[in-house]
Amino acid sequence: MAVSLGADASAATSDHVLAVEGHDQLQLSPEDRKRITERTKWVLDSPDPPGFHQEIMGSIKNVICSQENNKPSSSQPPFSWIVTFLRSAFPILSWARDYKPSMFKDDLLAGLTLASLCIPQSIGYAALAQLDPQYGLYTSVVPPLIYATMGTSRELAIGPVAVVSLLISAMVSKIVNPVVDPISYTKLVFTVTFFTGSFQALFGLFRLGFLVDFLSQAAIVGFMAGAAIVIGLQQLKGLLAISHFTTKTDVVSVLIAVAKSFRTSWYPQNFILGCSFLIFILMTRIIGRRNRKLFWLPAIAPLVSVILSTAIVYLTRADEHGVKIIKHVKGGLNPSSISQLEFNSPLLREAVKIGIVCAVIALTEAVAVGRSFATIKGYNMDGNKEMIAIGFMNIAGSMSSCYVATGSFSRTAVNYSAGCQTAVSNVVMAVTVVLMLQLLTGLLYYTPVAILSSIILSALPGLINYTEAYNIWKVDKLDFLACAGAFFGVLFASVEIGLMIAIVVSFAKIILNALRPRVQELGRLPGTDIFCEVDQYSVAHAVPGVLIIRLNSGLLCFTNANPLRDKILNWVAEENGKEGIKKPIKGIILDMSSVTNIDYAGILALEETNKKLLSGDIKLAIASPRWQVIHKLKVAKFVDKVGRDCIFLTVCEAVDSFVGSKFTGPGNC
Amino acid sequence: MAVSLGADASAATSDHVLAVEGHDQLQLSPEDRKRITERTKWVLDSPDPPGFHQEIMGSIKNVICSQENNKPSSSQPPFSWIVTFLRSAFPILSWARDYKPSMFKDDLLAGLTLASLCIPQSIGYAALAQLDPQYGLYTSVVPPLIYATMGTSRELAIGPVAVVSLLISAMVSKIVNPVVDPISYTKLVFTVTFFTGSFQALFGLFRLGFLVDFLSQAAIVGFMAGAAIVIGLQQLKGLLAISHFTTKTDVVSVLIAVAKSFRTSWYPQNFILGCSFLIFILMTRIIGRRNRKLFWLPAIAPLVSVILSTAIVYLTRADEHGVKIIKHVKGGLNPSSISQLEFNSPLLREAVKIGIVCAVIALTEAVAVGRSFATIKGYNMDGNKEMIAIGFMNIAGSMSSCYVATGSFSRTAVNYSAGCQTAVSNVVMAVTVVLMLQLLTGLLYYTPVAILSSIILSALPGLINYTEAYNIWKVDKLDFLACAGAFFGVLFASVEIGLMIAIVVSFAKIILNALRPRVQELGRLPGTDIFCEVDQYSVAHAVPGVLIIRLNSGLLCFTNANPLRDKILNWVAEENGKEGIKKPIKGIILDMSSVTNIDYAGILALEETNKKLLSGDIKLAIASPRWQVIHKLKVAKFVDKVGRDCIFLTVCEAVDSFVGSKFTGPGNC
Repeated sequence: MAVSLGADASAATSDHVLAVEGHDQLQLSPEDRKRITERTKWVLDSPDPPGFHQEIMGSIKNVICSQENNKPSSSQPPFSWIVTFLRSAFPILSWARDYKPSMFKDDLLAGLTLASLCIPQSIGYAALAQLDPQYGLYTSVVPPLIYATMGTSRELAIGPVAVVSLLISAMVSKIVNPVVDPISYTKLVFTVTFFTGSFQALFGLFRLGFLVDFLSQAAIVGFMAGAAIVIGLQQLKGLLAISHFTTKTDVVSVLIAVAKSFRTSWYPQNFILGCSFLIFILMTRIIGRRNRKLFWLPAIAPLVSVILSTAIVYLTRADEHGVKIIKHVKGGLNPSSISQLEFNSPLLREAVKIGIVCAVIALTEAVAVGRSFATIKGYNMDGNKEMIAIGFMNIAGSMSSCYVATGSFSRTAVNYSAGCQTAVSNVVMAVTVVLMLQLLTGLLYYTPVAILSSIILSALPGLINYTEAYNIWKVDKLDFLACAGAFFGVLFASVEIGLMIAIVVSFAKIILNALRPRVQELGRLPGTDIFCEVDQYSVAHAVPGVLIIRLNSGLLCFTNANPLRDKILNWVAEENGKEGIKKPIKGIILDMSSVTNIDYAGILALEETNKKLLSGDIKLAIASPRWQVIHKLKVAKFVDKVGRDCIFLTVCEAVDSFVGSKFTGPGNC
Repeated sequence: MAVSLGADASAATSDHVLAVEGHDQLQLSPEDRKRITERTKWVLDSPDPPGFHQEIMGSIKNVICSQENNKPSSSQPPFSWIVTFLRSAFPILSWARDYKPSMFKDDLLAGLTLASLCIPQSIGYAALAQLDPQYGLYTSVVPPLIYATMGTSRELAIGPVAVVSLLISAMVSKIVNPVVDPISYTKLVFTVTFFTGSFQALFGLFRLGFLVDFLSQAAIVGFMAGAAIVIGLQQLKGLLAISHFTTKTDVVSVLIAVAKSFRTSWYPQNFILGCSFLIFILMTRIIGRRNRKLFWLPAIAPLVSVILSTAIVYLTRADEHGVKIIKHVKGGLNPSSISQLEFNSPLLREAVKIGIVCAVIALTEAVAVGRSFATIKGYNMDGNKEMIAIGFMNIAGSMSSCYVATGSFSRTAVNYSAGCQTAVSNVVMAVTVVLMLQLLTGLLYYTPVAILSSIILSALPGLINYTEAYNIWKVDKLDFLACAGAFFGVLFASVEIGLMIAIVVSFAKIILNALRPRVQELGRLPGTDIFCEVDQYSVAHAVPGVLIIRLNSGLLCFTNANPLRDKILNWVAEENGKEGIKKPIKGIILDMSSVTNIDYAGILALEETNKKLLSGDIKLAIASPRWQVIHKLKVAKFVDKVGRDCIFLTVCEAVDSFVGSKFTGPGNC
């Protein structure tokens, strides 16, 4: 019954509108006036919003106190905080208790599938990072083990990834040439890895997760696609067995280097071998996609390719006829690399710089991948804990001959498809890689380099997301600009410049948005007390004699305050200057509901607008100001200048007050 | 009668609320459901907002077509557009026809008062700009004459000003040392003046007035105060008759230079002379402020000081006892300086750079001063025309031995007090300066340099605006940071660094604002259909079982989308995890009325929020989305995912729909 009254009310309001339109002889009843005044009081007498000082303190408190610490723990035994802390730092302590044998069966299967994909990829990515093959394998041992104890994602497959390997290669090789001085290069890579881990851990500890958000989705899509193409081009080196390749990564330099290599002798066997196995891997992927039960086929295809091609080369002795092979891979477990970290080197500054970039990119990939699978499975992934886990695993990695590891997109998808239950699949994978390192590295001697290139090439299409790029184009053209900027920047300049373009465009967009002075005229929706943009709602009609303007900008600040003032004043002058105008505008209602904050310049502009309007005998009213805005208007004494009775809770009340007073008799407003 | 029904309606709504609270057994009537559905249709079926392409074209059109051209002129004779154009470019053609002899009387008086203040100031500012004294006088001839024909302000007093002189001196002297090579220095100053004028004219022609707004009010207040102190310190050179001064402008360098000078011989006569006349000028100002009729006393005090001090020095031959005098001032009219403009010099790039800075600062001062007096007198000053006028007067000035001129704050105030009616007072002033240049420069031979310093010092307090700085502090702490940054930057580093700090802080503020994920819980205001922040309005009370959240951010974009999603999800988890909770939250209403725009990352975050909430059997509704936002949500197919029946015109309807369906029986939403 109660709700149905709403319909009566709106019917009544509809009468009301007609009445306003038909007869101007309308006076607000004393009760209405009282009601409006009381509601204005609500607006004006609200408590002060949290001030600058409180907001700062709140942010700091947020950073220092994690959510766990906030919970009272009075009923718990002493030293329970140690248990709480350990459980918080090592989620494995929580979930290991519920671990069941049936889960291990799934994890074992997933881990073995993962290992079969991980081993060839790791060797390939190490080559991409211009490191010896064993470093790729090392990176698939220590970081996954650490992550399994500290991470909160259940699917994330940890190890070396393509984009970070490219970043390392592109940025570190600018400082130390890996061909001329491979030892210094490797040392610098470990140092970079240490700083990458440190930054990641710090981001997590200080809850600076928002730093990762500085790369917008659009920028990531563009960057990843560009990086995929650049990585693909780098694989031409292995596929064509080019010995003198460029250290630059842009398309033009690489194509020139390839063209040059054709002039010298080249061995098409490498290319044929690589391409045939690339086709084989891609074929298995198509089969796997058509038949979901055969998901393991594309997963083990790379390992099968390695085994088959190695066997072919060994049997035909093709390496003596120009097929390039890996040759010696150092066996044994990860050696310690603590002594190789260089903190006193003159290159320290560069290492820190590269470390920041790698930290952000690696986190972006891991968090994005982990979160998307967590959403599918419906559990929560704690972004800050994730950053701490990834940070510590990279710090530990830098001390055990690993380079930067993170969550791999392609392998995580395989892990998920293979039915992994917990991070134990990462442990299984790491143990398998350890066995491989201890026993089987000798078998890799005859593995052709071209196969590694084709394995990397086969993983690249996943990094190029056409549909998402198209969606971005549809939704937001400026977002697409950031996307395209990152893409072409990576492609034609360098990885860092691509990133820079993306970040600059993204932030320029925010500023541009604050620059544009946008105002919209509002009209009443028929049969309601609701006022909406007349351009958006064709049913809305303007109230004669009153101009209702919504400031369509989140901030009324120095960038748009003066243009807004001019726009409003010009608008009024134009409306009142129209020929044959029936009712000149006598009142302006500013709907401030979109304005969440105002600055000093904004208040000055409002004051000037009010002064100017008053000189033309036009009243200004402010409707639905937000908390910060009304607080600042009060503090700046603007409320006193415009009059307390010209501030309204809603547009509707402002209109009632104007129509009730302005057109008929003496009113207060 | 119609309006009084509003009161019934609200009383009815109040019943309704009670009913909702008291009994959950509530069902939406079919009419209500129909009404809500129809209003949702209004939201969803609105036409597309102007797209990216249209907005760009609109902006360009706005730039190209001025308002004058938009008016139809079919009934006018041919070639009337020439008349229109001339009238538009030279406002003097419009107002000269109405010029009356009585107005000339006022303008003559004001012009003469202005000249008496302008002549000593011009010589002083030329010294501040490290130019020969006659250049200051030249600058008070050509620019005011040009401005009188093109400008739209009636009060603006044109000529050299303190801050721009400081800028020129600080920036140009870094490139060419004025003591070592005064001729090249002067040439470079003219070239800078040319570019300053060109940029100003271009800003006006292309309607780029918003570029001037890049300096927020707060930044200007801080910058001006810092510049005033720096200028004051520079005057120590004249006041103490120091011969070896520093070319740097920061406080530390200047104080060290002053300290050093005390070790060599110094002549206290200069200081005593300067200070006595400074006290005299300040005394006249206090008298003038107490008695408004004596406004002319402080205005002519500087000229009186010059005459008196010159007479004293001439009679006592004090120049032979250490009092520094101006000596020779070149007489005669402005010589042409076209041949001195250097466009092929290697310093061209620097000249362009300094030109941009001077253009913005000079425009900022002129427009701010002009607009404030136009507001007092209640006429319109056209910002774009003003920029064109100031630009052309500086271009003309650069060809007639003038340096950068603009509207002076102190002299404009004098002009206004003296009762000027039109820009004719500028003409009177220019003619007086011409006469002075032709006939009386010889008299300046014995004028002591210390007097010029004291005249400049006396004009500085007007540049330091304590009250405005205090107001900025009260209203916006971050704005104050920009203000303080500019102040201390100018004081302790350099003029450019101060400006840079102010601009960076101002824009960082905008980005910071877009970074903070702010959400507020809404509740129903008693007796209304209005939902407001519960923290702001203590009378508002939450609806049990429904969490109504307003996103208090103008943009839902990559910087705040993910933190917002986490905040909302954590909030729901926390609310539903509370002990002894009566009604778990079953519905979330997102009030998007503050969100004026959304990007791809924002839509993704909304999708993830929806997915996550659905997995906990919680419904998500979107209320009052703005035009751009609902358009993008439609394009991105978010509306299809969340369901058309979960989009509402207002929060109230979403609540009605939730309360009517969610808590009682099967509903559609």
